[in-house]
Amino acid sequence: MPSIIVLSGSPSPTSKTAALSGHVANRLRAQGHVVREFRVRDLPPVPLLSADAAEPAIAEVVSAVAGADAIVVASPVYKAAYSGLLKSLLDLLPQFALADKAVLPLVTGGSPAHVLAIDYALRPVLTALGADHVVQGWFVLDKHITVGADEVTLDPAAEGPLRTVVDGFSEAVHARRPLAVAL
Amino acid sequence: MPSIIVLSGSPSPTSKTAALSGHVANRLRAQGHVVREFRVRDLPPVPLLSADAAEPAIAEVVSAVAGADAIVVASPVYKAAYSGLLKSLLDLLPQFALADKAVLPLVTGGSPAHVLAIDYALRPVLTALGADHVVQGWFVLDKHITVGADEVTLDPAAEGPLRTVVDGFSEAVHARRPLAVAL
Amino acid sequence: MPSIIVLSGSPSPTSKTAALSGHVANRLRAQGHVVREFRVRDLPPVPLLSADAAEPAIAEVVSAVAGADAIVVASPVYKAAYSGLLKSLLDLLPQFALADKAVLPLVTGGSPAHVLAIDYALRPVLTALGADHVVQGWFVLDKHITVGADEVTLDPAAEGPLRTVVDGFSEAVHARRPLAVAL
Amino acid sequence: MPSIIVLSGSPSPTSKTAALSGHVANRLRAQGHVVREFRVRDLPPVPLLSADAAEPAIAEVVSAVAGADAIVVASPVYKAAYSGLLKSLLDLLPQFALADKAVLPLVTGGSPAHVLAIDYALRPVLTALGADHVVQGWFVLDKHITVGADEVTLDPAAEGPLRTVVDGFSEAVHARRPLAVAL
Repeated sequence: MPSIIVLSGSPSPTSKTAALSGHVANRLRAQGHVVREFRVRDLPPVPLLSADAAEPAIAEVVSAVAGADAIVVASPVYKAAYSGLLKSLLDLLPQFALADKAVLPLVTGGSPAHVLAIDYALRPVLTALGADHVVQGWFVLDKHITVGADEVTLDPAAEGPLRTVVDGFSEAVHARRPLAVAL
Repeated sequence: MPSIIVLSGSPSPTSKTAALSGHVANRLRAQGHVVREFRVRDLPPVPLLSADAAEPAIAEVVSAVAGADAIVVASPVYKAAYSGLLKSLLDLLPQFALADKAVLPLVTGGSPAHVLAIDYALRPVLTALGADHVVQGWFVLDKHITVGADEVTLDPAAEGPLRTVVDGFSEAVHARRPLAVAL
Repeated sequence: MPSIIVLSGSPSPTSKTAALSGHVANRLRAQGHVVREFRVRDLPPVPLLSADAAEPAIAEVVSAVAGADAIVVASPVYKAAYSGLLKSLLDLLPQFALADKAVLPLVTGGSPAHVLAIDYALRPVLTALGADHVVQGWFVLDKHITVGADEVTLDPAAEGPLRTVVDGFSEAVHARRPLAVAL
Repeated sequence: MPSIIVLSGSPSPTSKTAALSGHVANRLRAQGHVVREFRVRDLPPVPLLSADAAEPAIAEVVSAVAGADAIVVASPVYKAAYSGLLKSLLDLLPQFALADKAVLPLVTGGSPAHVLAIDYALRPVLTALGADHVVQGWFVLDKHITVGADEVTLDPAAEGPLRTVVDGFSEAVHARRPLAVAL
């Protein structure tokens, strides 16, 4: 079974980005993937900000990314780009950490005016990490994400398109695995 | 056999971008692809600039792109981005013209300072055209391209890495085709 | 009196971008500036696309830009960026054509999802042209622009903020002129 | 006297970015500015990463930025963009924190291939913070910065152009102050 890492990069303890990430992780699990979630805010701040990749909790994320077939990278939009928190983790990944992996960028924000942050801010960083198969990303408005006690609900306006995006990503991940063996 | 369209977008009649495109086209042909090249500068300027996609020569390019498995998009760097000439053609393609196609961005320029134009300028436009598999692009310095009477020669510093990029793209294109059938 | 050039880069003969440009030009004239408007689509396509800056109509634009205190650059959003038509003109300007000039970027589009095209696509090109004072740009939704027989009307939701932007630009242009003399 | 804040965003304790920032700060002081330097890595990591702008050390930076006439923002290039550390600070500044301030972006990196990170990554974030006068930035190669026991030395290839950039910024800052009073 393909393994997928979901990284979410919101500094907020009640983050809609994290809620969305969990929602997507569950859908990917239902499609046969082994999914593991990491919230960057749960990592120890001192080694994270000093780029200490040897610290055990950070080393575990780096190792999990290295072993995964695919990565979902989720961030809120702050100041027209991804969060500094997310970037702090991406900064300490090895240079080609995303080579040979399918990548799905997900972004949340308060206004549709921030949509292009996916393609102009986040995608170039993912490409700089060696990714050569970053699928179409998706942007979800904060107001379309409702975080309940036990579950996350998406507004139908967001749920349908997100499913298409996630399912397309799931297919791409499944399709890449046998290929990797065959080549 | 997978079919590949190579689009080159330099306004110059003695373009290094076009020379590089031809060089790459030949290598892809040698690897079993059916390759067709278009230089945007050969298209009729009036319909091109007025976005008249019904004009026969332009309609032919649009149709060729629609039918291709993969696209190579090549441009010189002008003012920190792709050429306006190339963008004029991309502007009149349908909204999802690059969906389900592998795409290879190639850029030429006079200075390594322009390398990121691939990922920050050209790649977001290709993504806006629906591409979900834009492989790592490549940048070739003008001075590494020598245009002879019959052939194009690349400096060894450029030739080796370019081969790796083109061959990886070729593999990705071959790999995608059976998948498209299977899904 | 400060002189301002307004460049608009839509390929459409009934362009909302051009209508907006005219509207802004009139407001700047009312504030004491000498304003001259150019539509890139009125320039001869063949020399434009072959980057022939010596052609008289193109040379006139290049010369007008060189002599101006400030520039308004207006474009529709196509494929997540400025139009290829506009870029074709910017491509043939000299390397530091916008040095020592205040610049106002204006963009029109069908969806607020394109807003960041100003800052991620157009602004870097203006900066590459040597501009060091590109003020906050503005994005106007197509549906907020009504083109009448004799005049252009903006929806109040767009008119107010646009006035603030244009008036701030006007002040910046007025403020820069005495400085240029003094330094 | 105009006041200038210099922010540097490298996570490294022996940072070339910080060395360059100090070098630039000294030159600005010699030109009559009151300059204050902050290294983001000296701020407390926990409140920084949780966007706690009320923590005293962070509140002091936010307040200093609010009161300054101009800001120098310096970052190393990591993964084709500014550091996550720098962005973590920018993320917790108020929405229009850079309005009415001149801003100078400075970036250091190991290869000229990263130069455009200034204009495609850092500049849009500065613009999102309300800046309307971000002057031409400058990129310095790591190898051109030598950090000695008592001073920082720049290679002549970097020193001359950097002076031109810093002195132009200094003039712009001086010029803006009387204007602000006059308007």
